[in-house]
Amino acid sequence: MALSLKRVLIGTPVATDRAHHERLPKTTALAVFASDALSSTAYATQEIMLALMLTVAFAADPSTLQNLDKVLPIGLAIVVLLLIVATSYRQTVYAYPQGGGAYLVAKENLGQKTGLVAAAALLIDYVLTVAVSIAAGVAALTSAFPALRGHPVEIACAAIAFVALLNLRGAKESGTAFAIPTYSFVASMTFLIGYGLFRHFNGLPMEYAPLTPQLGPLPSVTLAPEEVHQTMGWALVFLVMRAFASGCTALTGIEAISDGVPAFKKPEAKNAAITLGWMALILCSLFIGITYLTFATKAQPILPLDPGTNIVALHHGHLEEPTETLVSVLAHMTFDASPFPWFYFVIQGATTLILILAANTAFADFPRLSSILAKDRFMPRQFQSIGDRLVFNNGILALAVLAGLLIWAFGGSTTRLIALYAVGVFTSFTLSQAGMVVHWFKKRTPRWQLAALVNAVGACATCVVAIIIGVTKFTSGAWMVIVAVPLLVWVLHSIHRHYASVSKQLSMEGYRPAQGVRQHVLVLVPDIHRGVIPALQLARTMSNDARAIHVSIDPTRESRVKERWTLYSRGMPLTLLPSPFRSLVDPVVDYVNELRARDPQCQVIVVIPEFEPRGWWPKLLHGHAGIALAVRLHFIPGVVVVNVPYHIEAFVK
Amino acid sequence: MALSLKRVLIGTPVATDRAHHERLPKTTALAVFASDALSSTAYATQEIMLALMLTVAFAADPSTLQNLDKVLPIGLAIVVLLLIVATSYRQTVYAYPQGGGAYLVAKENLGQKTGLVAAAALLIDYVLTVAVSIAAGVAALTSAFPALRGHPVEIACAAIAFVALLNLRGAKESGTAFAIPTYSFVASMTFLIGYGLFRHFNGLPMEYAPLTPQLGPLPSVTLAPEEVHQTMGWALVFLVMRAFASGCTALTGIEAISDGVPAFKKPEAKNAAITLGWMALILCSLFIGITYLTFATKAQPILPLDPGTNIVALHHGHLEEPTETLVSVLAHMTFDASPFPWFYFVIQGATTLILILAANTAFADFPRLSSILAKDRFMPRQFQSIGDRLVFNNGILALAVLAGLLIWAFGGSTTRLIALYAVGVFTSFTLSQAGMVVHWFKKRTPRWQLAALVNAVGACATCVVAIIIGVTKFTSGAWMVIVAVPLLVWVLHSIHRHYASVSKQLSMEGYRPAQGVRQHVLVLVPDIHRGVIPALQLARTMSNDARAIHVSIDPTRESRVKERWTLYSRGMPLTLLPSPFRSLVDPVVDYVNELRARDPQCQVIVVIPEFEPRGWWPKLLHGHAGIALAVRLHFIPGVVVVNVPYHIEAFVK
Repeated sequence: MALSLKRVLIGTPVATDRAHHERLPKTTALAVFASDALSSTAYATQEIMLALMLTVAFAADPSTLQNLDKVLPIGLAIVVLLLIVATSYRQTVYAYPQGGGAYLVAKENLGQKTGLVAAAALLIDYVLTVAVSIAAGVAALTSAFPALRGHPVEIACAAIAFVALLNLRGAKESGTAFAIPTYSFVASMTFLIGYGLFRHFNGLPMEYAPLTPQLGPLPSVTLAPEEVHQTMGWALVFLVMRAFASGCTALTGIEAISDGVPAFKKPEAKNAAITLGWMALILCSLFIGITYLTFATKAQPILPLDPGTNIVALHHGHLEEPTETLVSVLAHMTFDASPFPWFYFVIQGATTLILILAANTAFADFPRLSSILAKDRFMPRQFQSIGDRLVFNNGILALAVLAGLLIWAFGGSTTRLIALYAVGVFTSFTLSQAGMVVHWFKKRTPRWQLAALVNAVGACATCVVAIIIGVTKFTSGAWMVIVAVPLLVWVLHSIHRHYASVSKQLSMEGYRPAQGVRQHVLVLVPDIHRGVIPALQLARTMSNDARAIHVSIDPTRESRVKERWTLYSRGMPLTLLPSPFRSLVDPVVDYVNELRARDPQCQVIVVIPEFEPRGWWPKLLHGHAGIALAVRLHFIPGVVVVNVPYHIEAFVK
Repeated sequence: MALSLKRVLIGTPVATDRAHHERLPKTTALAVFASDALSSTAYATQEIMLALMLTVAFAADPSTLQNLDKVLPIGLAIVVLLLIVATSYRQTVYAYPQGGGAYLVAKENLGQKTGLVAAAALLIDYVLTVAVSIAAGVAALTSAFPALRGHPVEIACAAIAFVALLNLRGAKESGTAFAIPTYSFVASMTFLIGYGLFRHFNGLPMEYAPLTPQLGPLPSVTLAPEEVHQTMGWALVFLVMRAFASGCTALTGIEAISDGVPAFKKPEAKNAAITLGWMALILCSLFIGITYLTFATKAQPILPLDPGTNIVALHHGHLEEPTETLVSVLAHMTFDASPFPWFYFVIQGATTLILILAANTAFADFPRLSSILAKDRFMPRQFQSIGDRLVFNNGILALAVLAGLLIWAFGGSTTRLIALYAVGVFTSFTLSQAGMVVHWFKKRTPRWQLAALVNAVGACATCVVAIIIGVTKFTSGAWMVIVAVPLLVWVLHSIHRHYASVSKQLSMEGYRPAQGVRQHVLVLVPDIHRGVIPALQLARTMSNDARAIHVSIDPTRESRVKERWTLYSRGMPLTLLPSPFRSLVDPVVDYVNELRARDPQCQVIVVIPEFEPRGWWPKLLHGHAGIALAVRLHFIPGVVVVNVPYHIEAFVK
């Protein structure tokens, strides 16, 4: 029954030889690889705004409202960072045409241990990509449909299950499936930015009612006196740095193309590099466009207001999760008074779709990296096994469960999850770029000095940003990642040590066949009935001096066995084992241990008869003591258990 | 670790030969067997009152308050019934000195099927005895300590777990452990009744504040018009009958002595009969005493009042569970203004203790009846097996779980559980008495006609009461028992059919040893390493033409096996099984089925090597594909699986 449920959900198995990989043209490749990076524009500007709004909230002074204008310079700084990182990754594309993921590059150039740090950071990142993208997608959905608010965790978990199921079915990464949502998102967001700026500069109405109560009196939150000082001097710098750190999530996913160069049509590296350039350009345009529109129209994400007082609610010194996203507010402002107000729903729909698509890419990346790590014997070998539909089942399931747990633990809040997100991403960026610097020093190809410089700038920039994120977001959640990465590295390393040790123990090197091993064949005789006969016969074929054993628990059964034994024994000796505590297992284990103590080299074969009724409920009506015994004996070295089932029907006439 | 937890909770195992049974003197036997019956006085009168209070509540007319006075005639009717039943059971004691439980008596005299009905009713009763007694015990506790209110289910489940644990430890049924609570209860209740009546008749103050708001304006509940008519004419008769039915719970447990005659000192029957007489006398006195005190002082159980309006709350047309029991109210009225107000806590303590003791008796009875039914092959044989401490572990656990579920399902409400309780009790009473009538007709001992008449009166009386309970309590819950009893009978009967069928299939009668069975020995070779060698050796000792099998999933492994096979094969042929869908299990199963299809009489022995790392976490790092294969093969007739473990360390230097 479980099997047929699996067939309905996952589909029928696919033969190994049907695996194939299609090469992608640039336009399709852009859609496939850019969805993760582009989708971050749906939340990056909002995260900057939320961090800045906190400075306003803490200041309790209307003049600080202008702090919100810092969104533009912060956005520009991030664009510069983005261009540096993209240029740096362009070089990885050329240097690693076989695919240059951070794990591979760091391992090859900085050593296995650094590679493991990159791998650990990446694994955590992939889980967070799913959690953050799905949480943001749910936020886009609930912004448009207020009736769905209040159940973010349930909706997000259902979405994760849906994406996981698609991946377990092994949905072909068909170009169209990616192209439509990605290009719809790019087109509709471009239209939003363009038409929004047009309305703004032409003074067309852009009011949006829910924004007005919080725009003015936002700072009217009541603050404990010890919180107010936080906006003075360095504290303000800290909060602005935090806003910058939050915005850096715009860069997540930018490395995707460098991992997937072999999927491009020939010449792979060149095509990949061109696509990377286009992706960076689109990403920059969308991000700065949304940021500038926000700056120009003074839009804000809608925060939940305290009922009655109509002021923004604070929750443990933090702003609460917005009820409506910044993009949703921008779309309302732009289209509500326009001739096509329905375009608001196009924006929200396209945003939700691309965010789900972004989660989907992690469902390809995480299992792939897990299987590579499993092949290198750093992760359990189960991650290497390919499921019915030619996908890495266990990786997909592990990712879905971990992402679901994260969503649940953080109440489905995008903002709270993002505090964990970027620190891992920038760690792997740094290690990958640093690895590239070493790569150039090793290879010394023509003009290697310039290449090394470009990667060095990238590595330094991302390293500085990683530190900024780690410090400014430490208490909000980055500490978890900073603790988790070394812990995960230790786990990966221990797994590796175990596998290495196992293969050493299994190696045939120096193998000498053991000589003169004595075999003891024991057969358990719990009673005299037909179910026991096949076991007796088998024991006889295995050895001429097999020995029968009866554990004396029930006196009536014992005397029945003693009485009738000679009828069926054909000369096999019967040993009665007393069992003062009525255990079947202990006397047999003791007896076997005694045999092994007398002759430590000997092999003991225990034949256990068991009648096996057909059907599930008749199985419940029998003790299956033989199985408990088999399990205990299984763990004693030198013991082999032979379970001889005798199949019977639930009912006979 | 699970084992050492078990040792701490349950204790070390006890040897079989340490089982012994002590014979009880009459005074101790009274304490042991009467606790269940006597404990029902803690709630029987209250249940009559609650049923009567409902007639008042529905009438919406202050004059109907006198309906409450019907508690006395109802109480007297129950006392008459009690004497009839006790007299009837006295005869069972003499007729069945070996112990005359309802199952045994009904089975012997009315046939196996009727016996099963009695058994089913009894099993359900024992579960309800635990649930009702514990719920009432918790009510006694929370009456005294209001801080504990609001968590009846949690407290009740903890109490059940505690009693179950004591029973799993096999606490000796020491006389003292029973004598102290039972006699304390009898003594303190007698004092409550005597001193209460003394205060009442001497006009000493007996006010109790929480009683006053509900005494007068009880009927001021607001009723829907369609509910008001219910107190007219026949409806009133119905409600009074229901009050009677509720009070009949006073009789539960009265049969206990007739089950346990062999535990008495010689002459067993006579001593048991005398003890039964005493028990009936004490039970009658306590019950009618409490009932009369209630009648005289106009005491009522305290019902939860609607906050603000101060009137009794109705819940779906029923009264809500009292916040304070009737006995607690009587104790407050009697002792609050007395020189020894602390005696209130003695009453509540003794009540709680005897109710827990009553639950404890069911923990002896249910496993005993289950084991008898298991011996007769009507229940799973697991109920027959004796645990570490010489008790029927599985029966105790099953009872605890079922009673806990009932408590949880009924929110720990005594009143709601009692609606289920009495119908089963009176069914088994009726069957047991009817069985006795048949017994006398069969035996025709001197004066058998009189004996038959006594039992016939008993049977008719309990039958009528069973019908009254079934009808008046049908919608409140009795229907569940009326459905459950035949269902349980069907289950018991099906289990019996299965066991009979199994022993027919296992019988050695007409057995002819099979001749010329061909054996195929297959050994699985997943790879070439030391873990496989012992399996190859064993296969060779089992047959000269053993055959090796490799399932081709991974091409590199396949070529490694093919390449190195000749080094270790010693001439054993190797078969490669293709696995297009990457399954290890399916190709082997197909291959085995093919062998069996060609020669249906043959036996196929599949030797599966498996390396077994020490420790729990290394086990997680290996696929254990061999186990999945072994389980699948286990269910194919004619197949024997031999699992050859190769033990390895988690780490080696």
